[in-house]
Order: sequence, then C-alpha cells, then structure tokens
Amino acid sequence: MTSPVVGLLTDFGTRDYFVPAVKAVILSINPEVRIVDISHEVKAFSTRQAAFLLWAVAPYFPEGAVFLVVVDPGVGSSRRILVVHGKKHFYVGPDNGVLSPALEAEGWKEVRELRTEKFFLPSSSRTFEGRDKMAPVVGWLSRGVPLKEFGPPVSSWEKIFFPPPRILSQTIHGEVLFIDRFGNLITNIPGMEFKEWLRNRAGQNIRLDVGGVSCWARYGESFFSVPPKKMALIVGSCGYLEVAVREASAAKKLKARVGARIMIRTKKVK
Amino acid sequence: MTSPVVGLLTDFGTRDYFVPAVKAVILSINPEVRIVDISHEVKAFSTRQAAFLLWAVAPYFPEGAVFLVVVDPGVGSSRRILVVHGKKHFYVGPDNGVLSPALEAEGWKEVRELRTEKFFLPSSSRTFEGRDKMAPVVGWLSRGVPLKEFGPPVSSWEKIFFPPPRILSQTIHGEVLFIDRFGNLITNIPGMEFKEWLRNRAGQNIRLDVGGVSCWARYGESFFSVPPKKMALIVGSCGYLEVAVREASAAKKLKARVGARIMIRTKKVK
Amino acid sequence: MTSPVVGLLTDFGTRDYFVPAVKAVILSINPEVRIVDISHEVKAFSTRQAAFLLWAVAPYFPEGAVFLVVVDPGVGSSRRILVVHGKKHFYVGPDNGVLSPALEAEGWKEVRELRTEKFFLPSSSRTFEGRDKMAPVVGWLSRGVPLKEFGPPVSSWEKIFFPPPRILSQTIHGEVLFIDRFGNLITNIPGMEFKEWLRNRAGQNIRLDVGGVSCWARYGESFFSVPPKKMALIVGSCGYLEVAVREASAAKKLKARVGARIMIRTKKVK
Repeated sequence: MTSPVVGLLTDFGTRDYFVPAVKAVILSINPEVRIVDISHEVKAFSTRQAAFLLWAVAPYFPEGAVFLVVVDPGVGSSRRILVVHGKKHFYVGPDNGVLSPALEAEGWKEVRELRTEKFFLPSSSRTFEGRDKMAPVVGWLSRGVPLKEFGPPVSSWEKIFFPPPRILSQTIHGEVLFIDRFGNLITNIPGMEFKEWLRNRAGQNIRLDVGGVSCWARYGESFFSVPPKKMALIVGSCGYLEVAVREASAAKKLKARVGARIMIRTKKVK
Repeated sequence: MTSPVVGLLTDFGTRDYFVPAVKAVILSINPEVRIVDISHEVKAFSTRQAAFLLWAVAPYFPEGAVFLVVVDPGVGSSRRILVVHGKKHFYVGPDNGVLSPALEAEGWKEVRELRTEKFFLPSSSRTFEGRDKMAPVVGWLSRGVPLKEFGPPVSSWEKIFFPPPRILSQTIHGEVLFIDRFGNLITNIPGMEFKEWLRNRAGQNIRLDVGGVSCWARYGESFFSVPPKKMALIVGSCGYLEVAVREASAAKKLKARVGARIMIRTKKVK
Repeated sequence: MTSPVVGLLTDFGTRDYFVPAVKAVILSINPEVRIVDISHEVKAFSTRQAAFLLWAVAPYFPEGAVFLVVVDPGVGSSRRILVVHGKKHFYVGPDNGVLSPALEAEGWKEVRELRTEKFFLPSSSRTFEGRDKMAPVVGWLSRGVPLKEFGPPVSSWEKIFFPPPRILSQTIHGEVLFIDRFGNLITNIPGMEFKEWLRNRAGQNIRLDVGGVSCWARYGESFFSVPPKKMALIVGSCGYLEVAVREASAAKKLKARVGARIMIRTKKVK
C-alpha cells in the first residue's frame, strides 16, 4: 500500500539546514520518494496551526503517502514519537496532538510508539529528532517496513480538538480555526449545514459578529457573486464557512485572530 | 511528447495548504511527475507578474512539460479555464492573459476550454479551482490524455501585452517589465538591438531616465565590467536590457516601479 | 556512483525566475533527478553563510549526490567555476570558497575547472552562469559524464575558514558561525570537547560572554533540561555547542551576530 509520496510539515522555515537535512535522510534510505512540502512556515511551536494544515491537506494525498510532521516544542523531552498506519496514509510525528485531527477524520488501523533504536541516526545531539529519528522511519515506512518493527502499540495519545459549532434556530456560534495568507477566516462551521440553515431565511440580511466586531455580510457561492470590498460568507475549499472580502483581507478589516468567536444572525429586511 | 515535469506558478504563498493540495492532486493521478515550483510569491492577483515569470522561464523546461498557472482573480466567475498544446509545452490556467506572452513566444497547436466535468474533483466549494479542476487536468495531461478530451476548441483568448520599445536614432524609449529581488530593472529593450544602437555611439556617455529620475549610466558585458555602486546597463539573463547596480538595488536608487518609462540618450564627451 | 539526487543552494530567493530556470535546465538533461532545495534565502552574496549551510547538510545526502551552489558575487568576472569529485559527493560552484568547508570535511578525489564550452547553454547574457554553465554540468554529472570532460585539473582554490576555538584550562574562546531562524547561536566549539572540558568543573556555574554581553548559562542535554527563558548551552544538531533560549531567541537577548566572539568560564558556587 505504500506510495512514493512523502508530505513534510514543519516550523523550520526555509533558510536554515533543517528541511534539506530531513529530506536528504529520507532520500538516502529511499531515493524513489517524491517529497511534497506542505509548509515550513508554521508559527514556531504552533501545534494547532500544524494540526489544521495537516487535516486540510491530507485527504488529497495518494493512498499510502507518508506524512512527517515536525512541529515539536517537546523535542528531547520524554514526549513520545508516534508512527501511525491510518486507513489511507501513514503518519510520523511527536505525540503532542498535531496528528490527531487528521487521524480522527481518516481513521486508523494501528498506532505505535517509535522506540526501535536501530533505525535512528547516530548523533551527538538530542535537538533534531526530526532528522535523527523521524526521517529514517519515514524512509523505511515508504519502503514497506511493517509498522510493528518501529515499536510497541499505544492505545491513547494527545489530542488537539477543533471545537464543534453550535447551530441554533436563531443563531450560529462558531470560531476562527485558521487565517490564510489572503486574510480569509476559515471557521469551524460546515458549509453544508450553514447553507441548510440559511435556506429558511431567504431574503433576510446576515449580521456577522467576529470577536466583538459586527458588520453586515452577504452569502455567495464564490468570491465573484459578492461585490468587491464587501464582507462575504462563502463555503471555502475545506468545505467550511469562510469570512472573506474579495481582493482584500477580512482578517485586517475585522482585526480577527485564530480562536476568535463568531456569531451569525439574520434580520428581516424592512 | 509528454514529459514527467510539471511547472507550478501561483500567488498562493507557501504557508497555507494551497500549494501542497494542488501537488497532492497531481501526484494522485500521476505519481511519476517531477513538480518544479516556478514561484508562489506572485503578488496576489498580479496576472502581469505571473505572465512575465512564465514567459521568462518556460523556454528552459523540457519538451512536453506541463505548466499550471493559478493566478486567478476571477476564480468562481464565468471566466474560462484554458488547456493549451503549445509547440513545445502544455499549459493550463485561467483565461485572463497569464498564459499569453509565453504562448506568443512559443506558438501553439491547439487551445481548448476546460469543460469536461468527469475530470473535476467533487467539491462543495467553488473557491479553489486550481485544486479541483486544473490540477486533475495537469495530472491527466502528463499521462498523455489527448487535449480534445478536456473541452471544445477556442479561437481567441485574453491577452497581456508587453509593450514594444521604440528605438529611434537619438533615443530609446522603453519601460520596466519586472524588478527582481536584487532590485535589477528588467526592461522591454532587446539586448541585441541595444548593443547595435550603442555601437554607433562609441565613446559617448549614456544618459538614463527612469520614471523621471535621471542619471549617468555605463554599459557593461557583465556586472563585473562596471564599477561597484555605479548605475549600469547590462544585457540580462532574459536577453533584455537591465538597469542594475553592482551589489546594490537599482530599483531603490531610482525609486522605480514596474511600468516606469525609460529613456536612453547619449552625449558626446567634451 | 552517481545518484539521482541534486542539492541546490543559492541566494536567489524564491519569487523570481532564477531557481526554476536552474531546475528546468537540469531536468531537461536528466529528467530522473530529485532536486532538493537546500536554501535560496542565503543573504545576497554571503559566501560565508552558504559555506556553512553546505558544510552542515552535505553529510546527510546520499552517496553520489551532486551539489550546485550559486552564491556568486563574481559572476561574469574571471573567477573560475569548480567541478569537484569529492569522496562521497559531487560539487559544482564558483571558486570563491563556498565549497571549501564541505570539501575539507569530506575529502576529494579530483577538482577541475569548468571550461568545456560544449556543455554551456547558448546565451546572449553573462549574468546567469548558474543557469547557462553550471546547471547543464550538474545534469551531465548526474548522468555519469566523467569529471575530466569538463575541464583541466586544478590544484588550489579559494578557501573560507571556520576558525578553530581555543580550549584552555580556565576558559574557552570561540565564535558564532551561524544564527538559525529560532535565534540559536551555532558556535565553532565542538560539543564533545566542551562536554569533556565541563566534566572537570561539575557543580560550577557557567559564565558566558558573547560579543561583550555577559550572562549566566546552564548546560543541558536538550532544550528540555533547561528552564524556559534561561540562557542555555547545548550540543546542537551540527555537533557543535549552541547558545540557545528555550522557546525564545538567544540572538535577540544577546544582540549577537555571526562572527561575535564567545568566551566561556566557570565559577565555583559559594
């Protein structure tokens, strides 16, 4: 089931030797892999941002792809490293929650703790386990080494939760999960459920509150069905409701941050 | 004629899930491709900048390479998506002019509008056609699916023009097409024509005007034949005249922008 | 001995057409290669920073990998281009010292000057030899063309030295070689030698001086064995002593720069 595709997600940036060292180790073990950079610009130590990105992109990778996530504030501590056989992909990363939203969505067959030292690189340092412990495992996984070789099974692990929204008859309460580079706010409100909720309110105006800042908003099927510079609600490419301004930044206009509370109401047009 | 190389040019940046999602879709269809990032730092929605970059780099890609350009302010609107069989490469991108300078230079055999929905990913969103419509087509094109499968032929499309310079007996009038990260100004004046024009003016000093700012400049075969910190004219790596300062930024010194008018004269040394 | 892996290190940035042009040329000659970006964010013309990065990452690349370094303030001058058969890898780059620390560490079999013009791309410009001269050589090297085809042997070349530290009985004198994105200061003091030195001083406090700024510091096996926000000395992932602050920037706290002098002493706890 293994495929030659590896997805790499870190907070290493791209100016130092960290990312190429990880890639070099993987390619030394399996020169056949194609490595896809998911992102290396995760905010330093932001397990929450990494968890979102992995969750958003994993479903598009081919079956058997191996994900390596190195966003790891606990490197060198006693935190475990997980090796996971999901229902569609493999995952390697620290046990700090970064893998959990993707795993919840995909399901898993087997989860193990990385322990087998024969796979590790010899190293005089304990600060770069992404290169010295995790990258070799990714290389061997991509070559079909069975999961049980890497360590004992584990039955529980750290989790990061994306809170579910509350969809009430009069209001929807959600929050901002992620802000993209265009300033669009990705919420935790499923697009389908929002459209269903809105269907009963045809012709009413939408009142939006983000982190205490209120404004009128319009629902559109795409950016193009909403006038430029107007606050818009659209179903974004993750399948969730997004707050967006066409050709401008909703985050700036609303001074919004990840975690900001969202409330949506409608008002009858007089 | 297809090759396993794909060139990817977007304004997505590299911190979100956009670029890896596009790559994952392509690799899911054709795990053999090599994907080359052209740039993901195109200024948001700048079709002109993207058109320049594609034009500058396309000739160096192997025959049969497939280019995917997702700089697409009209995503979700009725703008068309083009699928092009050029004389040397394939191109996929929105019909907003981004492909046109590269196509003008290369020539084309067949241009079609992407319509065949069976190639599209199922999606509840209309905001990410780069992933849901264009990426699958790139995957299938790289596997040799013939162009006619993707939709009906089209005979005209949007164009972005790079204006031609005026080369007169006493003056040359051109403009700035692109400014690179070193601050060099790439102009629309062909290097060969400039050298020809200059040959008749041996020993004269060059007077340069960029966007209303005037200075003396020297022509050099390379950065090294001009003194440090002096304004230089050199034939750059696109084959066009560039305004440059060795180890410094000409753009800063001249406060120049893309589109700025350039005038070149010579003056007899007294 | 050739492998399909190419490591690419430049100061080109990633927004222009420079990096993809180099990759396209390599892939046109050998479509089988896997190209790994080492970094393209080297400070413009900083041969010293490039030399450090290449030295730090080269050992992790598979045998037969080819490195191309284009950090080249002398492009277009008479500086030579070197083609090197190291004991484990191949190297192509300008003769300005960037290759030398990696070569010193690895050893070499053969060093030649690139001269054979039949490998060069035709070009009307002399400003982009990374694309027009070096990239083709990388492509051919990766296909197994023997070194002697590229030009005559050379017996000496430019060198960049990383100064050795002085480890005295009472003090260690070193300097900062590199500062990573987290603000950790990588020094020229080998981790093993530091640990040996420290062993005789158990229970003493460490006094650290960086570029004239003094503070107390603690030695730790990893970030996690030192309290947050405290100045720490750890053996970093290059095997050298690093000055670090857990979850903060040592460089900011100490206002430190590359080249800053380091002095380490210990004081008996009263």
